[in-house]
Amino acid sequence: MNEVILSETLEAFRSGDISLEETLDKLKSWPYEDLGFAKLDHHRAIRQGFPEVVFCQGKTIEQVVEIMDRLVSHNRNVLATRASSAMYEAVAKKIPTAQFNEMAKLIFVHQEDITVDGDRVVLVMTAGTSDIPVAEEAAVTAEVMGNKVERVYDVGVAGIHRLFAHQKLIDKANVIIVVAGMEGALASVVGGLTAKPLIAVPTSVGYGANFNGLSALLCMLNSCAAGIAVVNIDNGFGAGRLASIINHMR
Amino acid sequence: MNEVILSETLEAFRSGDISLEETLDKLKSWPYEDLGFAKLDHHRAIRQGFPEVVFCQGKTIEQVVEIMDRLVSHNRNVLATRASSAMYEAVAKKIPTAQFNEMAKLIFVHQEDITVDGDRVVLVMTAGTSDIPVAEEAAVTAEVMGNKVERVYDVGVAGIHRLFAHQKLIDKANVIIVVAGMEGALASVVGGLTAKPLIAVPTSVGYGANFNGLSALLCMLNSCAAGIAVVNIDNGFGAGRLASIINHMR
Amino acid sequence: MNEVILSETLEAFRSGDISLEETLDKLKSWPYEDLGFAKLDHHRAIRQGFPEVVFCQGKTIEQVVEIMDRLVSHNRNVLATRASSAMYEAVAKKIPTAQFNEMAKLIFVHQEDITVDGDRVVLVMTAGTSDIPVAEEAAVTAEVMGNKVERVYDVGVAGIHRLFAHQKLIDKANVIIVVAGMEGALASVVGGLTAKPLIAVPTSVGYGANFNGLSALLCMLNSCAAGIAVVNIDNGFGAGRLASIINHMR
Amino acid sequence: MNEVILSETLEAFRSGDISLEETLDKLKSWPYEDLGFAKLDHHRAIRQGFPEVVFCQGKTIEQVVEIMDRLVSHNRNVLATRASSAMYEAVAKKIPTAQFNEMAKLIFVHQEDITVDGDRVVLVMTAGTSDIPVAEEAAVTAEVMGNKVERVYDVGVAGIHRLFAHQKLIDKANVIIVVAGMEGALASVVGGLTAKPLIAVPTSVGYGANFNGLSALLCMLNSCAAGIAVVNIDNGFGAGRLASIINHMR
Amino acid sequence: MNEVILSETLEAFRSGDISLEETLDKLKSWPYEDLGFAKLDHHRAIRQGFPEVVFCQGKTIEQVVEIMDRLVSHNRNVLATRASSAMYEAVAKKIPTAQFNEMAKLIFVHQEDITVDGDRVVLVMTAGTSDIPVAEEAAVTAEVMGNKVERVYDVGVAGIHRLFAHQKLIDKANVIIVVAGMEGALASVVGGLTAKPLIAVPTSVGYGANFNGLSALLCMLNSCAAGIAVVNIDNGFGAGRLASIINHMR
Amino acid sequence: MNEVILSETLEAFRSGDISLEETLDKLKSWPYEDLGFAKLDHHRAIRQGFPEVVFCQGKTIEQVVEIMDRLVSHNRNVLATRASSAMYEAVAKKIPTAQFNEMAKLIFVHQEDITVDGDRVVLVMTAGTSDIPVAEEAAVTAEVMGNKVERVYDVGVAGIHRLFAHQKLIDKANVIIVVAGMEGALASVVGGLTAKPLIAVPTSVGYGANFNGLSALLCMLNSCAAGIAVVNIDNGFGAGRLASIINHMR
Amino acid sequence: MNEVILSETLEAFRSGDISLEETLDKLKSWPYEDLGFAKLDHHRAIRQGFPEVVFCQGKTIEQVVEIMDRLVSHNRNVLATRASSAMYEAVAKKIPTAQFNEMAKLIFVHQEDITVDGDRVVLVMTAGTSDIPVAEEAAVTAEVMGNKVERVYDVGVAGIHRLFAHQKLIDKANVIIVVAGMEGALASVVGGLTAKPLIAVPTSVGYGANFNGLSALLCMLNSCAAGIAVVNIDNGFGAGRLASIINHMR
Amino acid sequence: MNEVILSETLEAFRSGDISLEETLDKLKSWPYEDLGFAKLDHHRAIRQGFPEVVFCQGKTIEQVVEIMDRLVSHNRNVLATRASSAMYEAVAKKIPTAQFNEMAKLIFVHQEDITVDGDRVVLVMTAGTSDIPVAEEAAVTAEVMGNKVERVYDVGVAGIHRLFAHQKLIDKANVIIVVAGMEGALASVVGGLTAKPLIAVPTSVGYGANFNGLSALLCMLNSCAAGIAVVNIDNGFGAGRLASIINHMR
Repeated sequence: MNEVILSETLEAFRSGDISLEETLDKLKSWPYEDLGFAKLDHHRAIRQGFPEVVFCQGKTIEQVVEIMDRLVSHNRNVLATRASSAMYEAVAKKIPTAQFNEMAKLIFVHQEDITVDGDRVVLVMTAGTSDIPVAEEAAVTAEVMGNKVERVYDVGVAGIHRLFAHQKLIDKANVIIVVAGMEGALASVVGGLTAKPLIAVPTSVGYGANFNGLSALLCMLNSCAAGIAVVNIDNGFGAGRLASIINHMR
Repeated sequence: MNEVILSETLEAFRSGDISLEETLDKLKSWPYEDLGFAKLDHHRAIRQGFPEVVFCQGKTIEQVVEIMDRLVSHNRNVLATRASSAMYEAVAKKIPTAQFNEMAKLIFVHQEDITVDGDRVVLVMTAGTSDIPVAEEAAVTAEVMGNKVERVYDVGVAGIHRLFAHQKLIDKANVIIVVAGMEGALASVVGGLTAKPLIAVPTSVGYGANFNGLSALLCMLNSCAAGIAVVNIDNGFGAGRLASIINHMR
Repeated sequence: MNEVILSETLEAFRSGDISLEETLDKLKSWPYEDLGFAKLDHHRAIRQGFPEVVFCQGKTIEQVVEIMDRLVSHNRNVLATRASSAMYEAVAKKIPTAQFNEMAKLIFVHQEDITVDGDRVVLVMTAGTSDIPVAEEAAVTAEVMGNKVERVYDVGVAGIHRLFAHQKLIDKANVIIVVAGMEGALASVVGGLTAKPLIAVPTSVGYGANFNGLSALLCMLNSCAAGIAVVNIDNGFGAGRLASIINHMR
Repeated sequence: MNEVILSETLEAFRSGDISLEETLDKLKSWPYEDLGFAKLDHHRAIRQGFPEVVFCQGKTIEQVVEIMDRLVSHNRNVLATRASSAMYEAVAKKIPTAQFNEMAKLIFVHQEDITVDGDRVVLVMTAGTSDIPVAEEAAVTAEVMGNKVERVYDVGVAGIHRLFAHQKLIDKANVIIVVAGMEGALASVVGGLTAKPLIAVPTSVGYGANFNGLSALLCMLNSCAAGIAVVNIDNGFGAGRLASIINHMR
Repeated sequence: MNEVILSETLEAFRSGDISLEETLDKLKSWPYEDLGFAKLDHHRAIRQGFPEVVFCQGKTIEQVVEIMDRLVSHNRNVLATRASSAMYEAVAKKIPTAQFNEMAKLIFVHQEDITVDGDRVVLVMTAGTSDIPVAEEAAVTAEVMGNKVERVYDVGVAGIHRLFAHQKLIDKANVIIVVAGMEGALASVVGGLTAKPLIAVPTSVGYGANFNGLSALLCMLNSCAAGIAVVNIDNGFGAGRLASIINHMR
Repeated sequence: MNEVILSETLEAFRSGDISLEETLDKLKSWPYEDLGFAKLDHHRAIRQGFPEVVFCQGKTIEQVVEIMDRLVSHNRNVLATRASSAMYEAVAKKIPTAQFNEMAKLIFVHQEDITVDGDRVVLVMTAGTSDIPVAEEAAVTAEVMGNKVERVYDVGVAGIHRLFAHQKLIDKANVIIVVAGMEGALASVVGGLTAKPLIAVPTSVGYGANFNGLSALLCMLNSCAAGIAVVNIDNGFGAGRLASIINHMR
Repeated sequence: MNEVILSETLEAFRSGDISLEETLDKLKSWPYEDLGFAKLDHHRAIRQGFPEVVFCQGKTIEQVVEIMDRLVSHNRNVLATRASSAMYEAVAKKIPTAQFNEMAKLIFVHQEDITVDGDRVVLVMTAGTSDIPVAEEAAVTAEVMGNKVERVYDVGVAGIHRLFAHQKLIDKANVIIVVAGMEGALASVVGGLTAKPLIAVPTSVGYGANFNGLSALLCMLNSCAAGIAVVNIDNGFGAGRLASIINHMR
Repeated sequence: MNEVILSETLEAFRSGDISLEETLDKLKSWPYEDLGFAKLDHHRAIRQGFPEVVFCQGKTIEQVVEIMDRLVSHNRNVLATRASSAMYEAVAKKIPTAQFNEMAKLIFVHQEDITVDGDRVVLVMTAGTSDIPVAEEAAVTAEVMGNKVERVYDVGVAGIHRLFAHQKLIDKANVIIVVAGMEGALASVVGGLTAKPLIAVPTSVGYGANFNGLSALLCMLNSCAAGIAVVNIDNGFGAGRLASIINHMR
């Protein structure tokens, strides 16, 4: 909770301006407001350094619009993931400044400047062409959160010499995100080429015994390379978010 | 079935030496004999080019000894897989020429010369040190079946430059067997470096979400490299056997 | 990497025509070019004996057309798997010589003669009628790669006498591909009838406890017949590719 | 419930000899007695044609002895499955006529003659030598329940000509039990050779992707041969019991 | 194979009318004919007592029509399972006598009289209303194969007194088929009420942790009631077929 | 069974008004009537305190209408779950008083007053907005069965301070239902904050390694908090029903 | 947190006796003390009505003794689950009043009287004899927490008439716990006979496709009977604890 | 590869001191040496900032001793994970300075000073007492790699107020490792309280539907809190290693 407001409230309590009960009630009902179907957290930017992120999958268009509208009125920047084109069109009517990245399925409302430290690069790599939508979700998320992002796509291990041409970029990167479906081996190989933190994103790309991403997930979890951690299948947003957190550390 | 004997039998039938019923009975009860608990197939060497192989796991010591004893009296060379030291000791009392490879858990009875074509190499690789017992099962099986075998162990993808030092050996090999547990990514990487047939053997080495070899198995089945086929988890024998078949083709 | 060009480049470096940095950059950026979303590998035919293969599933029509167009301008023959009719139509507008096998879902661009050794047959068998599309993917892949292919379809083990009528063909084949869904037992039975390499392809044909091909996959991996290796569920291309590699060995 | 006793009880109720409450209580508390830890059902032989069967696994030696002791005092014949040697020794002290089949892990107390119809044969087949203990559980169960049993062991599909020598026996059998681990394909093959009811018993014999019998179970459930039904993994008793029921039908 | 024809062929061979090669070729190519995509087995009625059954799922309409047309010209009665209305309409144009049971998804061509023994009843039970399509597949299959069938639907164990009203029918039945989804407990309960053979059919009815029938399948396989065997999930045909085989035994 | 009617029937039997056979037949065929495809149980309200509930999923519209029509004519209140709008429209034509809650997919026919004890509250909580449909199924079910329900939605553990604002409501509730998808951790956290019975409902909300609700299900089953029990994935009705049973205890 | 102490602390804060920082520190570090490896919660009895429960599995004997020693000095009654005999012996040396129930693997330290309301019975039922240890864990837990418990063991559904003799006990019980392995069908059947809350405990008893309790777990989760909730496999303690909570509600 | 040495080698090549072939051979065989069963990588400290780590599980005592002996002669500091006491004793004979942490199962050879930046804390938390061994593996790994580590153990979510007392420590930490078995919910809760990178380690602690850590793994992967990444089940080393990498970033 916002520490300044907490101090003020407690001082008001000690000075007798408000009773103990009032104080507690105030604190508890604050700092979010109730839309009936979703609790919004306007102060999350203070607490975690980023605005509230709306996960659109499973929500109705009306819910997405209403949630974003309220968030925009309190926060500076807002991000919506897994958004459809129809959702974006409805949002754009209420929030004309909203931007849409169709491949990444992200809606972004940009109200404050984002400072980017260009010396600290997040590198996003994919094994195949079909992994790109998940990679873009990760890359755009990191960009929106104030990171310089470099992309190297389609460097799967079956033609590993394609990968080595990018050793310089790997050495330069501060954090690396590897996105791969099928057998997910790219994470292990890149993990062996670097001492940087590596976030592996299994994708559901593939067929047969891929079992909707299970093969890549298990492969990455069992990687013999150190320094690798894994997020959920197809969870580009989570990888971009974590990369941004690490990249902003000093 | 052996074609010469089939010809003789049918001629005897046509010439009236034996009745139709006798002929059929003879053919049906031949060419194996019945020990009660195991049908032995003395002519398999003729049909498939290799002697009967005894899978020892799940059999009693007595059964192993009796089966091997009968096989030795008919065939030239006999191989027993997944054999314990105790099994070997019991076999050696009856068949003093029996040899034992403890790491590979193989008993071998060598009665005829094996011709080896040294120009055609089977290369056996492992990702880690713990995969070696399965690799040895594959390597010794291939050697027993008349192949020259080269071994490159502990070249997992987490330190991929170790692997590239062996590119020459990879180029020289006729058939490659890759044995790997954990994430099994070595198969994909080697598969991308060669146009030779590659047999991938997942092992149950690892822990946690390895799930007794499932992670390596799924990884190898989903490999994006072409030219790879997979055998059962820890099935070194099967890989060695198939490599030998391919290596003997001309 | 193409050895001739490597030699030339290194000689140019030694003779001082190009600096070390230039040399490395040249080598690294070569021999593929970057379309932004896909790295193409024009020299793969040199390295692996076959052209680049495009896996169409999960790609947009535009991506498939662009990738094939670039490949055609560098390579001799190009193959695209899991292609839809719509993809073919779009490709055919740019590459009029492209051919389509609808059942196998393969697009093929034929620019150089393929030499076929008719004495070395790849035999493709299926257990049921529903397995035929996967079998055709395997068969046409092998044909495109220069192999004579024979087909024996619908010889599942429930009526095993249908199978035995084909013993001659089995004996004649150099490599055998067995395609089967449901319980996948055909692989084990054929494996017991031959000493040739056998590639088993589980299919997702079936229902109930078939679990999208898992039953056939496990059955084939656990086959008690030696000489069998397995590829991914429904992976006809992988089987055809591996069969071709083995069939071209001498 | 035994109909004669039901009649008598209801007549006593109508005649006023016992009250409605007494009648109901009597019926409800009858025909088993309570040992505290196990309800025994002395009249099951009447209801189902066979005595109570004791499943020993998970019970203490004391519990097995006490349960068998009570059953013997009421029934004619008693069967205990999954019994250890230690259990048998303890039982034999109290019931000297108890017999033990160690391979099948069955204890049997024989108190009445069993009539066997030798014209109706139950055929028990195994794919391998390691499947024999489960097969013996099935075979001895069927014998104890009054069936003539023939055994054909070690006729797995990898050497399918061994199987065909037994076509006559298959044709003669009334009910067939197929016991197989690994890929379990024997059930499908035999199912295609006969129009008799076939009970398939998957075993946990194997390794790797066998997953404790899952591969054989799925294979048998997905069999393309009609007339096959499956019992639990390693459930030899269940198969023998069902075979006996079918074999006694007329 | 048909024994009479075998005799004739072999006599012709002995008398010299045909050579050994001709004889073998004749026998091998007989008794099915080749449509290219499906081997038909006209003599299966002789071998197994029933006509060929066509599994329509995964086949095209054209394939179904062609296969049925050929079968009708050789056999007496033909059954097609998992057939769509569109398939039936196409079949009916060629074979006007074809009948369709829409709920059971069965096409049946009736060309010879079916003798039904009304004293031997197959009883088909379901736990719920949603299990009825699978139950009808079983029931109609059994009827088509010459069995009298009784149906008792919607007697799941959550209201077990509904079930007990049918004890008389259970006692009268010769073979019982229990069809149940969700937890599949009905099979165990009925199994405890009867000494007749019981075929359990798990269905994919349910939701959540039902996992497409897995819960019912495992429940039935683990039933503590003896005399139960299980067929594949939703496999009404297999159950009806096996029930018919058992019901015709004497 | 209804005890009054049972008494009357038995007295009629003792007095000789009806024979034993008639009595048994009457009892057995009563108290439900047979629609052919569904056994209805008009007296369940007597036996279990609630009317019959119709599970609509997997039933045709016609079946739903006919079942509800019969139930309405015998019972007071009827509830139908997993109903579509189309089902409701068809039902409403026959039963104009039927009400529909679209989000909860429940049809309710209200014919008798429901007494609600407002002091005993059932609290329904969700982790996210997407879990609300399942929560509404639970909440409305409990309301229809005579319970006062409070709702607290979107209080997932990732912003746990939102949850603590509701501690008072948690303390006041008599029974708590927690509905959560993804990792399902809300159940454990709430379970640690209360000594009330807690019913956890995993939902299939999520993606990737959620595997259709498996992650939430396993999480809840393994909760380290005591006093938690779990119902099937997405089974809001079951949770509401059980909460009502517990809430009516005194 | 204990409300009285919270009040006192806050008043001290307002009166200036302690600073804000001191107050917060005090509250935070209270009411548990730190053993280094385990946080103990002495006031849990106040918060949840029961003492801390020690889960012994996975802890060393020394840890169990130290934790219990500290808990005994603060609380009234302490319960330890999954305790071995060796653990009990070590505990008894320090806490001579500790009692041990070997079958249930529970250690109990009884320091205050437990009031039991004999009119409200918790009924614990098992399907088989092998399920009794888990059932005893549930029963003794409930007894220790002040409930009258009745036990009905070995009434599995394969002999369902055994179960019906206990209908009176079922009607009399306030809460029912059903413990069952194998197919777990007993929960569904009992659920259909009662309108009381029913807690189902799957056990890992069984073999083969039981998969360590998975079959019973899935069966119980998919029960078509309403009013059932499920706890983890073999979790007798959790069931006893929840039953006690429900049984104490008024 | 070490860039200085690469430069020197290439200059020697240009100057003609060594031939192209010699150069390549030298580079390839360098910088590791071959023990036959394990490739050691002496320069990894240069490349990745840490010494080679020996994974002892699955290796023989002799292999562990030999590998550590060689590593010690080249590197400064060496770490061995999953080591048994017997392994340590054998190592200590050869390397007397080797240290052993028994709970963490780590052997450490300390030859150079480790600089620790005390302002940047890695916080290691566990849900329960049984998770401590895995947590210690993580904590000691991080310490050995030059990090200040704070430990907070046994703060599972079932008593969530225990956790909140540590908010200050959470705020102060630079990187957080959460180790939890059973339902693994602690990761989500801590993830919601911080904006620091959080590494979640599922453990195999638990029973029943925990399935050897699967429940915690899935829970953590599906966490609704952002900024979380997951390593393999029980992989304390991997978490400690990644935490160290992130903690050393600036």
